[in-house]
Amino acid sequence: MEASQQNLEGFTLTFGVAQAVGLLTVVLVTVWAGHYCGGFSWRSNPDTEFNWHPVLMTLGMIFLYANSILIYRAFRNSRKRRLKVAHMTLHVIAFILVVIALVAVFDSHNLKDPPIPNMYTLHSWIGLSSVILFACQWVAGFITFFFPGLQSPLRASYMPVHIFFGLGGFVGAVAAALMGLTEKALWKVTDYSHLPGEGVLVNLIGVFLVLFAGLVIYVATESRFKRQPLPEDEMLLTSGLE
Amino acid sequence: MEASQQNLEGFTLTFGVAQAVGLLTVVLVTVWAGHYCGGFSWRSNPDTEFNWHPVLMTLGMIFLYANSILIYRAFRNSRKRRLKVAHMTLHVIAFILVVIALVAVFDSHNLKDPPIPNMYTLHSWIGLSSVILFACQWVAGFITFFFPGLQSPLRASYMPVHIFFGLGGFVGAVAAALMGLTEKALWKVTDYSHLPGEGVLVNLIGVFLVLFAGLVIYVATESRFKRQPLPEDEMLLTSGLE
Repeated sequence: MEASQQNLEGFTLTFGVAQAVGLLTVVLVTVWAGHYCGGFSWRSNPDTEFNWHPVLMTLGMIFLYANSILIYRAFRNSRKRRLKVAHMTLHVIAFILVVIALVAVFDSHNLKDPPIPNMYTLHSWIGLSSVILFACQWVAGFITFFFPGLQSPLRASYMPVHIFFGLGGFVGAVAAALMGLTEKALWKVTDYSHLPGEGVLVNLIGVFLVLFAGLVIYVATESRFKRQPLPEDEMLLTSGLE
Repeated sequence: MEASQQNLEGFTLTFGVAQAVGLLTVVLVTVWAGHYCGGFSWRSNPDTEFNWHPVLMTLGMIFLYANSILIYRAFRNSRKRRLKVAHMTLHVIAFILVVIALVAVFDSHNLKDPPIPNMYTLHSWIGLSSVILFACQWVAGFITFFFPGLQSPLRASYMPVHIFFGLGGFVGAVAAALMGLTEKALWKVTDYSHLPGEGVLVNLIGVFLVLFAGLVIYVATESRFKRQPLPEDEMLLTSGLE
């Protein structure tokens, strides 16, 4: 029970608030897309197919991505190997949602008459870079830490890189979301400059995204909250089975 | 010479690349404002008065802010007290530029006929929040670490908060800048969707901002690069003079 000797004061509260803010953000984006932007469709209408894009990106590239990062700290008493599988799996689910979200936005551009050009905004450059970084990290993490699994010194030297670019991809996704909200607000919110209900909603989604990012980065980087290896982890490590 | 025993491999290169990318970003924003957006004026023309806003924000709230953060690591062999004075001073200069940049944008809205409303975009909410956070941090840092200077336990407990919100305000400023670029691109860049020269320039400024932020956060958080206390610092600390 090494882990119980840690000073985890404030962990549960901060983690809980982060979850609440994250869920609220996903709900607000869904309400925005569903209520203000005309709801959801697939292939039949480019405008409503688009609406999957913000919802699935917020859910996959932000909320699930963050929870996958936090899984080691949230379930600190579970075995390392189980946490790794959960971390990978959650990222796979996130990635599938991200791919559907990307299909939705490309479709919504290409199915328009005339088509809307793709990949010209700063949002798209930063957003797609974050997705590519995320995918590269998944592959590198899988090879290094899971299968075949590299030797200890290589794992140890890749770990800080994995963490840095993992958090970096998350922050990049949040920055891309903020730019995406800005784009939609300027293109679509009628009379945005007088802050109608929809304008306030878009801005609040942005504010909650920033709060969520701050809380996640805090919980993920506070050294006091770091998961301590369990005796089982150590055994596996020294026996070379993991 | 304690500091020389540290493993600082890669510090000079990373720090140098960060400076180069940061300076390049400031230059590109200035070229954009000066060449593509009509240059600079004060009070006589709201459109060109506005142009001070992106230039001074990038210089003050991003480039100088970052360098003020990095000063402890860049000049690690200088005395702590001297570094503190430099840190505060650089932040004061940054803050003055930020205030001028804020006056420029409010003027450019208010002097228009009809006036453009203020503070309705997500950019303005996140941007002004970052500036307010920055100002609060300055005051709290001054009281805690400089004058009158609180007692050691209080300093020690505020330090991680100061660092977290210091880096947070910097990242918030970069996020606000990315939204500001997105706004200007959508409002002003003719035929943005076919990526004319100005559109590419705006996007590249955004990409360089993200690179700069990544490099700065890396240099500021890599524990290997942390400044080690000098013997003089310790003496001052124990004698209670600092």
